[in-house]
Amino acid sequence: MSKILRINMTDLSHKWESVPKEYETLAGRAFTSAVVNKEVEPTCHPLREFNKIIISPGLLAGTPAPSSGRLSIGAKSPLTGGIKESNAGGLTGNRLGRLGVKGIIIEGIPPPDTKDWYSIVVGKDSCKIVKTNDYAGIGCYELIGKIWKDYPVKPGIIGCGITGQRLMKSAGVFGNNPENTDPGRYAGRGGLGAVFGSKRIVAVISDSTGGAVPSPKDKDRFDKGRKALHEALDKHALTGKLNDDEGNPFGALKNYGTNVLQNILNESGSLPTRGFSSGRFSGASKISGEAIHELVDKVKKKFGDAAEGRYGHACHPGCVMACSNIVPYEDTGKAHVSPLEYESVWALGTNLNIDVLYDVAELNRLCNDLGLDTIEAGNALAMLMEGGLIKYGDGPAAIKALKEVYKPDSVIGKLIASGTQSAGEALGVTRIPVVKGQALPAYDPRPIRGIGVTYATSPMGADHTAGYTIAAEIAGIKGNVTDPRELKKAELSRTFQATTAYVDAAGYCLFIAFAILDFDDGLNGMVDTVSAFLGKEIDIGEYGMAILKNERDFNKRAGFTAADDRLPEFFKTEPLPPHNVTFDVTDEELDEVFKGV
Amino acid sequence: MSKILRINMTDLSHKWESVPKEYETLAGRAFTSAVVNKEVEPTCHPLREFNKIIISPGLLAGTPAPSSGRLSIGAKSPLTGGIKESNAGGLTGNRLGRLGVKGIIIEGIPPPDTKDWYSIVVGKDSCKIVKTNDYAGIGCYELIGKIWKDYPVKPGIIGCGITGQRLMKSAGVFGNNPENTDPGRYAGRGGLGAVFGSKRIVAVISDSTGGAVPSPKDKDRFDKGRKALHEALDKHALTGKLNDDEGNPFGALKNYGTNVLQNILNESGSLPTRGFSSGRFSGASKISGEAIHELVDKVKKKFGDAAEGRYGHACHPGCVMACSNIVPYEDTGKAHVSPLEYESVWALGTNLNIDVLYDVAELNRLCNDLGLDTIEAGNALAMLMEGGLIKYGDGPAAIKALKEVYKPDSVIGKLIASGTQSAGEALGVTRIPVVKGQALPAYDPRPIRGIGVTYATSPMGADHTAGYTIAAEIAGIKGNVTDPRELKKAELSRTFQATTAYVDAAGYCLFIAFAILDFDDGLNGMVDTVSAFLGKEIDIGEYGMAILKNERDFNKRAGFTAADDRLPEFFKTEPLPPHNVTFDVTDEELDEVFKGV
Repeated sequence: MSKILRINMTDLSHKWESVPKEYETLAGRAFTSAVVNKEVEPTCHPLREFNKIIISPGLLAGTPAPSSGRLSIGAKSPLTGGIKESNAGGLTGNRLGRLGVKGIIIEGIPPPDTKDWYSIVVGKDSCKIVKTNDYAGIGCYELIGKIWKDYPVKPGIIGCGITGQRLMKSAGVFGNNPENTDPGRYAGRGGLGAVFGSKRIVAVISDSTGGAVPSPKDKDRFDKGRKALHEALDKHALTGKLNDDEGNPFGALKNYGTNVLQNILNESGSLPTRGFSSGRFSGASKISGEAIHELVDKVKKKFGDAAEGRYGHACHPGCVMACSNIVPYEDTGKAHVSPLEYESVWALGTNLNIDVLYDVAELNRLCNDLGLDTIEAGNALAMLMEGGLIKYGDGPAAIKALKEVYKPDSVIGKLIASGTQSAGEALGVTRIPVVKGQALPAYDPRPIRGIGVTYATSPMGADHTAGYTIAAEIAGIKGNVTDPRELKKAELSRTFQATTAYVDAAGYCLFIAFAILDFDDGLNGMVDTVSAFLGKEIDIGEYGMAILKNERDFNKRAGFTAADDRLPEFFKTEPLPPHNVTFDVTDEELDEVFKGV
Repeated sequence: MSKILRINMTDLSHKWESVPKEYETLAGRAFTSAVVNKEVEPTCHPLREFNKIIISPGLLAGTPAPSSGRLSIGAKSPLTGGIKESNAGGLTGNRLGRLGVKGIIIEGIPPPDTKDWYSIVVGKDSCKIVKTNDYAGIGCYELIGKIWKDYPVKPGIIGCGITGQRLMKSAGVFGNNPENTDPGRYAGRGGLGAVFGSKRIVAVISDSTGGAVPSPKDKDRFDKGRKALHEALDKHALTGKLNDDEGNPFGALKNYGTNVLQNILNESGSLPTRGFSSGRFSGASKISGEAIHELVDKVKKKFGDAAEGRYGHACHPGCVMACSNIVPYEDTGKAHVSPLEYESVWALGTNLNIDVLYDVAELNRLCNDLGLDTIEAGNALAMLMEGGLIKYGDGPAAIKALKEVYKPDSVIGKLIASGTQSAGEALGVTRIPVVKGQALPAYDPRPIRGIGVTYATSPMGADHTAGYTIAAEIAGIKGNVTDPRELKKAELSRTFQATTAYVDAAGYCLFIAFAILDFDDGLNGMVDTVSAFLGKEIDIGEYGMAILKNERDFNKRAGFTAADDRLPEFFKTEPLPPHNVTFDVTDEELDEVFKGV
């Protein structure tokens, strides 16, 4: 029996609600965006009493559908001022799915003079709001360690670190890894960690003891679908198994992680480098997925079973793609950071002109410990470099600056944690790579125009995961595209955005995109799982577009207009080497994406 | 012969243009807002190549009409992202009026690798763009001293200080005092100093040698009008002469300056104190206009002719109200700062809980030297106090923090100079008193709702001068209003906003409002001067509303919506002592102000 848990932080009460008819087929992003749009006043201050946090496991979370355990978190974003859904792997999606919780709605804030910090413990038909002052003010590694000790049942844990507790706009929501106390599973974007902080919530702990695997309405079709999808994933060159039958490396993501993109993007001349001033980075190979693979192999060889380094690591139970990794210290073989993803390596390495893998891993570890979104923090560090406070390429200086974030009174620390736009504007930078206040990720929109259209028009602000046209433009999915500039960008981005919204709602990882685009069996398998689970035929495009409509409606009422669906001016006037192109999609083309929506 | 000077900073060229028919009756704010709306792309980056600076003397600047020499500066604002007109006294309005220059349009920016700084020297039918690297990087006092030495003809000088040169969003445009090298005449609001900096312009120097007093089309009516207005100003208790026939203090502004409002607002319980958390300040009288009057009298008595302190000081040639002052050091009688206005005393004193007159004067002197808007800088300092970096009431700490702005690499300095919203957001403050990104001035909108409506709906962002309903709500103009909460606020604000736009275009000081509202002769006198000067009947409301229409049209195309015409949430939820009221004007009432405009 699916149900909704509503928590009021003003009087620390909670109640269980049955699921209204309008939400019956919704889950994950579909649920969070519907509730935010319905219940949150769009012009409210995102860090004061009227904002709400909505937590919802994907539709298939907790089921055996492959790579389907993701968790969505929604609210009005302190970073963009618009609606936000951010999703991640980790354990909580699985745990809430097994508990039959469709969503948690957290409203209100404790009275202004409250000094206490709280955590929410969700179990089978139970909810406790407990005072956990000892969880506040510490690093996220230590925090998860404490919680895991207090709750030895391997609960799902999400929450905010010290940056969220201090209402910093780059604070993400961390999630725990399936098997250790690393806080590496981030619903990072949009400053949702600060919304947790504003409600004085450190953690939401989900214990699925006594829960059950959710039952699909049509079990046969569901099982057929999940198997077909699993097979498609396994046979795809990007998401397939670690080795082929002859023992050679096969699946790119399992071997090299998402950071396999570092060399590919560099090759294509669209790898944003040194504050979006070049599309090529001389140091790319040194911090690439291949370099991490090599480092892991090296420590394995040297330290044997004691080596903690790993590739082909799953971010949530039931993920068959396992694109994650554990990056080891070279000298001890012990874990340094997990995961080290492409976007983070790019934000904390490439775009800062830093090509020392250790420095990049350390910057990522610090972000994870501080509760910071790596993309936002990296771009903010780039603003410090643009503003002349640190030199491009100086890894130790970047590490030193990021460590300032720990200090409650450090102004430079606060500047980094307040996000790219705040940092850039405070430093007089006019090349600030943000859309709707959120920093751009790791694909330059000048040579790759479709992703530029997604950055500009997504209700989320600049976000590659909102409509990952890279699959078609760079990864050659659905056949090789020789010139990524030739696709019809508005249509391409719209299709990806709608499909992505559907995938997010299902709880599937975005990376199933490769297999469902390339193999009809995979696509049909995905559709079968969702429709069979609900016992109702669901159309991908309609379902996805309904989510986007909710999101755009919220943003419109919050004051967003077509003027917000634009890239920063410098992308239109500064050509990017080596191709020396500017972003030349017209405003009219951008407005085509959601015409009439 | 009226003409337009167009300057291109990309190739350092200029040309003189005749005035197009559509601009014939426009001047001051009417001209700057018309040109910005026509020529500037509303979505452009305000500190990059596509923004323009428009400089225009009021219609009557340079004529003998009383208090009519103000200068308007317009551009897209880096602080609000919307249209901006900011006006000030000083000498430039008079000088450009005498030169027959209707407006200066400055477009383009030097190539990105340019390290040079320029100044523009305007004379009779001449314009030179000169390299003036020695003018850059120094305080504004020293800067004006240098210019006055280089151009000993007492030119009008406007320009930006180091904060503008560093593209800081709180940078104002300074103007020079009529008789000394003080940079106290600020077109302070909206960050227009940073637009000067973006074009690498330090100063615009206007030498009216060989110029002429502008001729009205109907000289008799003009002379009749200006005399009637002058008489009305002289007989009004606010703007009248220093002493009455018996030698007792008479005109409030001449005696106590604008800061006569300090005690009045305190008495009314609507003086924003300690970061807009109270309407009463225990230290108000210590930093009031009366206290300054007393200090000036004291040093006059002690030092005689050597005393530089003064009240009843004119900010531009021909001002008969002379509300300005020169605040002396008590121990030497020498000038400390000029002027010390109500808004500045409030922003740098009252709202920071600082009640030491010397500290407030020193903070203002620093702002003037740095090229900072006092309202924005004061509110930004309040954000540092809200964020716990400085204690409320600690004047020396505030002075120390403000001095950090001089250092090019000081992060706290940059934070202060980047404006209230940037500073507040970087520090995790949720009580940020801004509208459209611009900080609120010295009247709390909770007890005084009309000014709240102006703050919310003015195209300029929060700005008391955009529709000074205080005249009716507090100063008792047009008869005493016992309860300022009872007026029809939408209508009141709209009327004041339209009238103000007309007054700004004429070049009149806003403070003629008291005399024209209370005396029909004064109102008719004003109308006579404007209509006689143009040889055409001008309707105040129509003319003013046409200006507002241009401004709202620009903002709409820049992406502003009704959601931007709102006060920050905390004014609606936190009651203000001592009256314990919230801002309860509804959104619908706010939208009434410009319904259909």
